[in-house]
Amino acid sequence: MVLAKSSAPSRDRIVAGAADLISRRGLNAASIREVAKHAKAPLGSTYHYFPEGKQQLATEAVRYAGTAVAGILRQELHAGPVAGLRAFLGLWRGIVVDSDFRAGCPVLAVSVEEPPADETPPALVAATKAFQEWERLLVETLRAHGADAEQAPGLAALIVASVEGAIAMSRAERSMRPLDQVAGQLEALIVGAVGRPD
Amino acid sequence: MVLAKSSAPSRDRIVAGAADLISRRGLNAASIREVAKHAKAPLGSTYHYFPEGKQQLATEAVRYAGTAVAGILRQELHAGPVAGLRAFLGLWRGIVVDSDFRAGCPVLAVSVEEPPADETPPALVAATKAFQEWERLLVETLRAHGADAEQAPGLAALIVASVEGAIAMSRAERSMRPLDQVAGQLEALIVGAVGRPD
Repeated sequence: MVLAKSSAPSRDRIVAGAADLISRRGLNAASIREVAKHAKAPLGSTYHYFPEGKQQLATEAVRYAGTAVAGILRQELHAGPVAGLRAFLGLWRGIVVDSDFRAGCPVLAVSVEEPPADETPPALVAATKAFQEWERLLVETLRAHGADAEQAPGLAALIVASVEGAIAMSRAERSMRPLDQVAGQLEALIVGAVGRPD
Repeated sequence: MVLAKSSAPSRDRIVAGAADLISRRGLNAASIREVAKHAKAPLGSTYHYFPEGKQQLATEAVRYAGTAVAGILRQELHAGPVAGLRAFLGLWRGIVVDSDFRAGCPVLAVSVEEPPADETPPALVAATKAFQEWERLLVETLRAHGADAEQAPGLAALIVASVEGAIAMSRAERSMRPLDQVAGQLEALIVGAVGRPD
């Protein structure tokens, strides 16, 4: 998994490993013990780094994934919204293909699990922030490249939502067909939006 | 949850309850025991109806959800693709709002959980069939209403993927904002696609 390729110190490796494991199995099914095993980290140091337990680790994993994706988006969007879209899609394609359709998006994974009653867990807050940051970066670039200012947020939401949905559909189908079809549609939409006269 | 409103015999109620529970917690975290409790069914009859266990129940739950959604789509698409889209969105909106953002799509839920090694579980096959059937119904109606025959499959994939992704984003954000923004975009795209001269 691209997001987990890290030669950084142990703590970061555990966070990246947690992001990967959550994207594969969901949060409910990823115990601290399994995360440690998955990240090839001693269980003791995992508890040492994350004394508050699984929720703390999950929150950091979602933040890590959100920030990593935002960093790639921010960098590639300099070359324009189509380049940014291609980088966003390329990132997810890499994760899905490299894992043989077993891994996906950890941010979506925590979003589709029911939180405890009367509580919004920090991992869910981190998921919302991640989605919104990706959307914000897309909106900014779409506007800067001539997209209608009022239309840009809708298109950005469509991009993030459809890529997230298509990752799940591609995993189920064990085929890049859904993600490829969505990619074609989104690229045409962006070209249409930035080419449109104000 | 709309999909679970059933006064049918016990077996159907268990399947509908399983679909609801899987959409809330994911497949890994939904045991047969919890499904029985959730569906207010005796554990004994749950085992009686589903002797092959959780995978059998999960497969039937995904098929049930896929068929229920396809039935609504099929019926509403008679009035055209925009009416079909609105019904599709209305269905998911009802599920998300009625559950206070706790339930979503059981088909997506099983799609984002890693299957056992070297095995494609029947629930995952059922998920792929459900997504593809929804797409097929949309393609058929888009074409019948004048959308370009070659463009229709891409638009149908975009509709299903973006609605699925937006359900997850709305759950995380505890707001209908993502689903509403995607709805606006999709409606405009369908109007554009069917209004385009051949």
